Amino acid sequence: MVGGGQLARMTQQAAIALGIEFTVLSARPDDSAARVVHDVTVGDPDDPEALSAFGRLCDVVTFDHEQVPAPGLAALVASGTDVRPGPGALAHAQDKITMREALTAAGAPCPRWLAWTPETTMAHVTAEIGWPVVVKTSRGGYDGRGVWVAQDEEGLAAVLAQPLPEGARWLLEEHVPFVAELSAQVARSPHGQAVAYPVVQTRQENGICKEVVAPAPDLAEEAALAAQELALRIAGDLDVVGMLAVEMFLAPDGSISVNELAMRPHNSGHWTIEGAQTSQFENHLRAVLDLPLGSPAPVAPYSVMVNVLGGEHPDMYRAFRHVMARDPGLHVHMYGKEVRPGRKIGHVTVCGDDVDELLARARHAADYLTGVIDE
Amino acid sequence: MVGGGQLARMTQQAAIALGIEFTVLSARPDDSAARVVHDVTVGDPDDPEALSAFGRLCDVVTFDHEQVPAPGLAALVASGTDVRPGPGALAHAQDKITMREALTAAGAPCPRWLAWTPETTMAHVTAEIGWPVVVKTSRGGYDGRGVWVAQDEEGLAAVLAQPLPEGARWLLEEHVPFVAELSAQVARSPHGQAVAYPVVQTRQENGICKEVVAPAPDLAEEAALAAQELALRIAGDLDVVGMLAVEMFLAPDGSISVNELAMRPHNSGHWTIEGAQTSQFENHLRAVLDLPLGSPAPVAPYSVMVNVLGGEHPDMYRAFRHVMARDPGLHVHMYGKEVRPGRKIGHVTVCGDDVDELLARARHAADYLTGVIDE
Repeated sequence: MVGGGQLARMTQQAAIALGIEFTVLSARPDDSAARVVHDVTVGDPDDPEALSAFGRLCDVVTFDHEQVPAPGLAALVASGTDVRPGPGALAHAQDKITMREALTAAGAPCPRWLAWTPETTMAHVTAEIGWPVVVKTSRGGYDGRGVWVAQDEEGLAAVLAQPLPEGARWLLEEHVPFVAELSAQVARSPHGQAVAYPVVQTRQENGICKEVVAPAPDLAEEAALAAQELALRIAGDLDVVGMLAVEMFLAPDGSISVNELAMRPHNSGHWTIEGAQTSQFENHLRAVLDLPLGSPAPVAPYSVMVNVLGGEHPDMYRAFRHVMARDPGLHVHMYGKEVRPGRKIGHVTVCGDDVDELLARARHAADYLTGVIDE
Repeated sequence: MVGGGQLARMTQQAAIALGIEFTVLSARPDDSAARVVHDVTVGDPDDPEALSAFGRLCDVVTFDHEQVPAPGLAALVASGTDVRPGPGALAHAQDKITMREALTAAGAPCPRWLAWTPETTMAHVTAEIGWPVVVKTSRGGYDGRGVWVAQDEEGLAAVLAQPLPEGARWLLEEHVPFVAELSAQVARSPHGQAVAYPVVQTRQENGICKEVVAPAPDLAEEAALAAQELALRIAGDLDVVGMLAVEMFLAPDGSISVNELAMRPHNSGHWTIEGAQTSQFENHLRAVLDLPLGSPAPVAPYSVMVNVLGGEHPDMYRAFRHVMARDPGLHVHMYGKEVRPGRKIGHVTVCGDDVDELLARARHAADYLTGVIDE
């Protein structure tokens, strides 16, 4: 797996059960996954030579992020290893304009959008999208970075005056009114077997995923089925191998539209470690190795996951003891990462019958761990 | 953790979630756990010097087996690390006569027993135990090794004519008629917090654990409670820290007696990875680190675990694909061990409502993986 973050770390837990020899290409020896994997290759995941050497070590290469540049992907393919998902699929998760073009061509519901070019005028924006406008860099955005909302022409001009990341363009999108943000995850293997996880509801704060409830409460069965079907169709159309997360908006009228794609295990699927028969990490491995996929069925009526974002307390050991003592049914996951404010350093999951109770328990644990509350 | 077997391997999965820095002292670099742990110390777990050096690396040392000789345990303690469980507790899992003496002193129900000495006569055996007699080496037995059944004086004399392992004596026990073999697992921390897992039924073949059903079906609630209370009492009396498995016989009259003790994660608790809110591996770590213990509550009405014992097929890859395709709800665990006939190389677990169906599914998978059946 290219990348040494928490997604690779949790994939290692699944690899151990499956008896798979699992190694990572990690930028630093103390990265989250590099601390817990037996064989670690320390190297720059953006460097074609490092990727090529890594590819020659592996039967199959996959990723814990989609940001490997095209020359690196080409080097991986040239190394003779199987690259899953392949560069053709990954392009849609790397560049939001490429994604919008493919989804629109496939007839998938999207917000109104346009790619800003030198010829585009404010009149075009007003006519084709309307105000306010969501402005995104087509590449390089992550966890709320690279996204702005422009209320008017002046605001848009200010955003567009900023420098773009290398290779990126400006994507302008309709500001979709939504009643909920959803994520539909599917796993798909090279020969086309696919499974769909229950559709979950996510809640973001400042563009960063904060909470996930599985399955999405109050979501009509018809809308949930439509979201699963859409995710399965996108996985097939874009030839995704491994896990695909389709992040969606649920509009007040019950319709859905696609916000983002992720082609890897995703934060919206951490609940599956305890809450589903097969975790997203195990199914990602089974998919990229072309093994039969495991059941995505939930094991409890509801599962709630809350991210632990770094707060002001660098040492969380005391808090760790407190939350464990207070709630013996809580599943605490720590990523072995240094605490920095706002950084994803862990998550907690709890499974049961009553969503409100589960949310209260998981939120309390996360808030206590991060020092937001102290009792 | 001293030892590099599958118990250490599965403990690594739990350590990853808890964010604990976990390392093993492993006899060989390709041992089951040594293949998946980041920092491995290769060394002889029986060698006091290797243990002492290992102890100085760790804040707390625990074990994946109880067979570390006394000089090694003394070296560990002298290294200044916390040794959990301590040598005083471990003595009862290392020597079956020491165990019988302590359990008898504590009033725990045991089969009739005596330690064979030069003064013991066949008349003593007939009077105090009766025939047939179970003969065990007090030390060094494992997975059915070191155990015989003598039908009469002649048979007993033949067993006793064999050489004893170093430091071992002969233990003679009543051949207990039983309707089921049970295992009661508890976790206990240094300051005395303890939790009891549901009592499970185990089935052995040739002295090796083959199947576990959790909870034990058809076990009267009263007997289950008595078994849990007994295990908790033994854990406290013997000052066990970490996981304790008390293997028991259930007699036709519903009474229980203690067969063996194990002071570590145990084969009878592998079902807890998917079947309980907190796995035995996580609770072992939480206990030896004096963290609050996790809930041992089951997450499904029944869980069934069947061991995968090495068969005639060294390459199980094709079989692996077949069982995964046939049953997407199956949890397959492979230990990364070379296949040798009779060796524990993996296990399968399945959770649900109907014990007979779960047993059929898990047995089919194990039999297919080991080549006993081919369809």
